[in-house]
Amino acid sequence: MRIGIDLGGMSAKLGLVNEKNEIVGKLVIPTRLDVPAREMIHDMAEAVKKLAGEYGLQTEELEGIGIGSPGTVDQKTGSILYSNNFSWEDVPILSILKEYLGPIPMDIANDADAAALGEVCAGAAKGAKNAILLTLGTGVGGGVVLDGKIFRGGVTGGCELGHMAIVENGQLCTCGRRGCLEAYASASALLRMARKAAAEHPESVMNEMCGGDLEKMNGKIPFDAAAAGDAAGYQVVEEYENHLAFGIANLINIFRPEMVILGGGVAAQKENLTAPLQKKTECMCFGGRHGQIAPIVTSCLGNDAGIIGAANLIEI
Amino acid sequence: MRIGIDLGGMSAKLGLVNEKNEIVGKLVIPTRLDVPAREMIHDMAEAVKKLAGEYGLQTEELEGIGIGSPGTVDQKTGSILYSNNFSWEDVPILSILKEYLGPIPMDIANDADAAALGEVCAGAAKGAKNAILLTLGTGVGGGVVLDGKIFRGGVTGGCELGHMAIVENGQLCTCGRRGCLEAYASASALLRMARKAAAEHPESVMNEMCGGDLEKMNGKIPFDAAAAGDAAGYQVVEEYENHLAFGIANLINIFRPEMVILGGGVAAQKENLTAPLQKKTECMCFGGRHGQIAPIVTSCLGNDAGIIGAANLIEI
Repeated sequence: MRIGIDLGGMSAKLGLVNEKNEIVGKLVIPTRLDVPAREMIHDMAEAVKKLAGEYGLQTEELEGIGIGSPGTVDQKTGSILYSNNFSWEDVPILSILKEYLGPIPMDIANDADAAALGEVCAGAAKGAKNAILLTLGTGVGGGVVLDGKIFRGGVTGGCELGHMAIVENGQLCTCGRRGCLEAYASASALLRMARKAAAEHPESVMNEMCGGDLEKMNGKIPFDAAAAGDAAGYQVVEEYENHLAFGIANLINIFRPEMVILGGGVAAQKENLTAPLQKKTECMCFGGRHGQIAPIVTSCLGNDAGIIGAANLIEI
Repeated sequence: MRIGIDLGGMSAKLGLVNEKNEIVGKLVIPTRLDVPAREMIHDMAEAVKKLAGEYGLQTEELEGIGIGSPGTVDQKTGSILYSNNFSWEDVPILSILKEYLGPIPMDIANDADAAALGEVCAGAAKGAKNAILLTLGTGVGGGVVLDGKIFRGGVTGGCELGHMAIVENGQLCTCGRRGCLEAYASASALLRMARKAAAEHPESVMNEMCGGDLEKMNGKIPFDAAAAGDAAGYQVVEEYENHLAFGIANLINIFRPEMVILGGGVAAQKENLTAPLQKKTECMCFGGRHGQIAPIVTSCLGNDAGIIGAANLIEI
């Protein structure tokens, strides 16, 4: 049994994961941002002991503990180098955890990477060895699994798929660069485009759907409007999908995954999103009939992907 | 001693490579495109025997033979799946070579990948373990080395860095897609831009530099014109470098290499090209001071990179 921890800005979700990649027990603790990192890590250690104990396990009986963390992590030193969410810098989380829990196997990865691994081990890409996960949420997170292992790039800080730019001199991204995929394919970008279109088209049903208050726009509305035959809604969805397909085709040309998995809020659209995306993407992939073009699917593990992926950082 | 073979559309260049990654002997044979693949592979086998023989080696004394080939190769089956240059399809080159040479270790990679490995083993990125090579020639070839090994992506046909697109609905690329890096950063693209600018600006010194015949435009002229203070030439170089920097920043965000190496015709500009590129690229890389930004350098092995890289497909 391994424990996978999905560390987030709000909570740390711990799961006890068996050899079939089933989560047999869960424990969620709040992420305390107002205390030094060491105290929060102590909370995590106590939670590990508690979760293991509930299943009659001593900590040293665990096969290992894996952590998926936001931000930039350094696997070699077991550290979180930097995370927006916690304002942590250079926190050697694994060695601190080992002080509390003893020398059991531990590993750490970026949370999007861990979620990608989770989907490969037990989710939408089960059976594949090579897959890319893009999470379409506040930002665009990316995780790549190649030959069953997380692709981490060269030196620390790679695999920022959301910060592959697709438009020269385009929209300003949160990272400071212009034109990033994140600035066009995140849920936030979809909302920006939908609000603009609704404001420019007072006749659009999107205005009605958000009760006349554009602040109440959500990622479902443009898709619903498009399905109802609303021209402005259709245009928003079309534009959003064109940008996303452009980015996905780039990633297929670079990584040649067996599957592309979409997660995050926008992925709730399922085939509504993936069917047109697949068509748009195919004609942009290199090699035509000589190239294998990955099916685009939506994630199926939801929040559990991060836990299962984190647990699978530990080889059993 | 290993033999590295750089297979090209015009010739196959064989090199006998020692453990210090020095080429101690070379042999070049023409690539015969008018005969069945098997005959050309027989020529290669004979050339291997001849080159080894010149240094007193029996074929079976070789530690191995590595091949860098244009097109899409399948390492698992040792085949060239498809190559524009030869009109070959599904040619099991390694098993045919073994028929002629016996069961010595052999491996195959794409030629740009092999050149990247060569530069890491003995060239511009010697000492690094992670590097990207972009060749700026007729097209834009790309090779990635991670942890000292060629990055091959997931399923066959990945790592087409030149076909990462950077402009939506942009220039038509030879691959059929619009907006590829290749359509903006190849030597061919530079010539296209220079010819257009020269035609639009009769006062530009670029017209004089190509003797009034735009067909005689070459990749050096816009750089020379820019250095001489020609506004149109400066604009061409600036635009070319902006596109290239945009693509390089994407690759840094994805792969986080320790070095980016530029090869091919345009790389003859050396610091003239790399110094402004470095500045343009830096402000587009994710993570600012938290991220390691690779130095951009030009290749230093020239044609030998492919031979040395091919030889290094064989582990000794």
